[in-house]
Amino acid sequence: MTVNPADDLIQTRASRDLSFLDLVSIDQVTDKDFSLIMDVARAFRRHGTYKFDFNKGLSLMNAFFESSTRTMASFDLCAKQLSMDTSNLSSSSSSTTKGESYLDTALTLDSYNLKIITVRTREAGVPEFLARHVNAGIISAGDGWHEHPTQGLLDALTMLDHFKSTTLEGRTVTIVGDILHSRVFGSLVRLLKKLKATVRVAAPETLLPVGVENFGLTVYHDADAAITGADVVYALRVQEERGAAGFIPTLREYSKMYGISKRRLDLAKPDAILMHPGPVRRDIDVHSALVAVDERSHILQQVENGAAVRKALLWLMASRLNGKKKEIVRK
Amino acid sequence: MTVNPADDLIQTRASRDLSFLDLVSIDQVTDKDFSLIMDVARAFRRHGTYKFDFNKGLSLMNAFFESSTRTMASFDLCAKQLSMDTSNLSSSSSSTTKGESYLDTALTLDSYNLKIITVRTREAGVPEFLARHVNAGIISAGDGWHEHPTQGLLDALTMLDHFKSTTLEGRTVTIVGDILHSRVFGSLVRLLKKLKATVRVAAPETLLPVGVENFGLTVYHDADAAITGADVVYALRVQEERGAAGFIPTLREYSKMYGISKRRLDLAKPDAILMHPGPVRRDIDVHSALVAVDERSHILQQVENGAAVRKALLWLMASRLNGKKKEIVRK
Amino acid sequence: MTVNPADDLIQTRASRDLSFLDLVSIDQVTDKDFSLIMDVARAFRRHGTYKFDFNKGLSLMNAFFESSTRTMASFDLCAKQLSMDTSNLSSSSSSTTKGESYLDTALTLDSYNLKIITVRTREAGVPEFLARHVNAGIISAGDGWHEHPTQGLLDALTMLDHFKSTTLEGRTVTIVGDILHSRVFGSLVRLLKKLKATVRVAAPETLLPVGVENFGLTVYHDADAAITGADVVYALRVQEERGAAGFIPTLREYSKMYGISKRRLDLAKPDAILMHPGPVRRDIDVHSALVAVDERSHILQQVENGAAVRKALLWLMASRLNGKKKEIVRK
Repeated sequence: MTVNPADDLIQTRASRDLSFLDLVSIDQVTDKDFSLIMDVARAFRRHGTYKFDFNKGLSLMNAFFESSTRTMASFDLCAKQLSMDTSNLSSSSSSTTKGESYLDTALTLDSYNLKIITVRTREAGVPEFLARHVNAGIISAGDGWHEHPTQGLLDALTMLDHFKSTTLEGRTVTIVGDILHSRVFGSLVRLLKKLKATVRVAAPETLLPVGVENFGLTVYHDADAAITGADVVYALRVQEERGAAGFIPTLREYSKMYGISKRRLDLAKPDAILMHPGPVRRDIDVHSALVAVDERSHILQQVENGAAVRKALLWLMASRLNGKKKEIVRK
Repeated sequence: MTVNPADDLIQTRASRDLSFLDLVSIDQVTDKDFSLIMDVARAFRRHGTYKFDFNKGLSLMNAFFESSTRTMASFDLCAKQLSMDTSNLSSSSSSTTKGESYLDTALTLDSYNLKIITVRTREAGVPEFLARHVNAGIISAGDGWHEHPTQGLLDALTMLDHFKSTTLEGRTVTIVGDILHSRVFGSLVRLLKKLKATVRVAAPETLLPVGVENFGLTVYHDADAAITGADVVYALRVQEERGAAGFIPTLREYSKMYGISKRRLDLAKPDAILMHPGPVRRDIDVHSALVAVDERSHILQQVENGAAVRKALLWLMASRLNGKKKEIVRK
Repeated sequence: MTVNPADDLIQTRASRDLSFLDLVSIDQVTDKDFSLIMDVARAFRRHGTYKFDFNKGLSLMNAFFESSTRTMASFDLCAKQLSMDTSNLSSSSSSTTKGESYLDTALTLDSYNLKIITVRTREAGVPEFLARHVNAGIISAGDGWHEHPTQGLLDALTMLDHFKSTTLEGRTVTIVGDILHSRVFGSLVRLLKKLKATVRVAAPETLLPVGVENFGLTVYHDADAAITGADVVYALRVQEERGAAGFIPTLREYSKMYGISKRRLDLAKPDAILMHPGPVRRDIDVHSALVAVDERSHILQQVENGAAVRKALLWLMASRLNGKKKEIVRK
């Protein structure tokens, strides 16, 4: 018997609701929220690009003040697959170039009666700031070096599915690379701790933020040692566009010290997986032979899970926002 | 009893039709057109982002040869909310960069059998020129320092709703700021005169076009005097990107002389409203405390009315164009 | 009796299927494919911008690593008119600017479960390379100086319709201009030979690729001689952005020697047609009086046929891809 996709989703959700009206930090995600998002995301994943009419009559704006291929396209298509009307605002066409503040751009967008606005900015804190001032639900699509909550959720989905579990208790996740400039790290580490994983980071001293050990993790400067016995090897990109190159002697040396090669990945547990938030810089972050071919690589699974998680959030947040008006401050 | 949104629109329209097939100047808008647009816009506003199927099977192109956040996104979402298929052509991706003329770009777009093309250009007169040569209906989204007719209509809607009237007879509208570089002024002043408002402008001599008094308005160089007793205070942006900065000593001096502060706004009538076409430059055009917080500010209401007016035009023009083939000239 | 558009399409197609799952070169198009595409394109053309639901629930990405107004907008609107969900990835926003390879960008897009990806690149061979590695169907929207297969198909449709024939046997097609830098030429000449046309090219020696005569055509340096007695005069654009200006003394001299004037076009047969792939540079490629006014010009008909051909491909490829999984290599 084939299940109707909409019925499958509705049954999976089982009348549950999110606790939040905006998503700007992984800290807002309660345990109940988390399991709701995971369940609904898996259900969306089962149905590929099927066009649902859940969000028909609702509009979304992707307000990307910093450009991003994959995240913007992912939100855009996800919204359309829920029958939302979408429009995109990118950095180059934004009125901020005419001297308008983020707040006024957001207030203007809000006056279009949008249901959800995704926001990406070069600066930390902007999505959280805007969330307090607009009626639309704000989803952070990454702010500065701070957080990227939908990335954290898709990463968690990828790990939990691989280990067929609801927590990461007893699992070791090793994050390798440019921790300092990474918004992905900011959301991931919060979620990993919530899921009870043991977290290790491996990076040169210069690519670690001050006080990183306060997250309750172990710092390594030797990638081999950090990866040995790990269940997940999570590589980050050297973010040259955010100035990372100034923190390391050469890309070649970095690659040799921290790039994930087959030899290095073999130090992890036999059923370990390799992850990377993309875009990958082949042969710097991760050796070319591993990215798409090695069966331990879950990099493309992460992308697919990203679409599933975003559709789950767009549906669940929109339905919560339809029932409840946000309390906002005008400034 | 809840009214079905489509029925509400159809009843509000009551079989009325526009007199024009293109909208490139406010001068084309007859009194009958104007009241039709106002009525239908108010009806669309009642239904937020509800998805109508009025324009299903019809396509729209936003041909923005000069970039604009808010106007392009507004047209794009409005068209989608009427079930149009839309695509956007922005300055940077346009073939005009490969030496193509505006005319040939428009003829090419016209060969896609589009129903409506919105056009924004740096140069005055282009939308009117193109309207004579393509089968699609042209809506000017602003041309040079000339006109921005949908802005004029949304401004009129905002004023008339506030004063609960069908004209502005006996009302004084004071327009403050960079009149010279403003396409908004071009449409607004024509419409204000049609609605029988008394119009004052306040600007430094250098930011006034030659012969501005021919519009039948009073010129002030003292903003306080111009605002005293006004019903509407309409601030314009200093358009540095169009070279305005060369016309004034410093932004700080401009702000002091012409920026709208609380003290200055208090000189207007007690029920006066503050308007601005956006994007606002806080603390230059308008003091930060007024923009979104002061209850006299109708700046965000203008944005919402913009969506309503644009949906009204897209629906009414498309239905007129479906019944009547434009007479065009090929060149 | 009015025919329902969807029925018209389904009857025209008559259960036929394409032989290919990707379209990256005109060489893949068999005779059966060709007549299927022509028939279905004509049927789509009969119904303008009518919204079909053939591809509902399927998603398309336009991955344009080199910008192009008309081709991207054409694919985007065509897909929407088939009810596809679409998103656009343009050069400036692409992760390739962060050091990602074409392959990884394509693998990432593929993980969104897209049905079709259109690809345009500055470099030859990229669409063909990507087609071997992704599950989505790839349609080349032009690669380097190599091929632009949908342009070739729309050109063939334009010629065959004019001559009311299924081949070009006995017809002479003269291609004039910058052959060297033209991807249009690459697809056109292959298709013209398949359709049994006699092909002449007229260009300065410097704008001809080495070995062009291997395509089975006659090279002229005298445009008048090449056009005399031709059935089709096909002008190409001098591609200054690809460096063509370095190959000719001056644009004025080029225009005089190879630009299509009325006098020159009159040398062709009385029922000859003028074609150009656009964007036209008036008075360099083609005299202004001919482009849109002269009844021999089929330039705008080419644009309309482009939409029809693209809709045919999007429908036929999607339905083929729904039935058959591509065999791909991961790298």
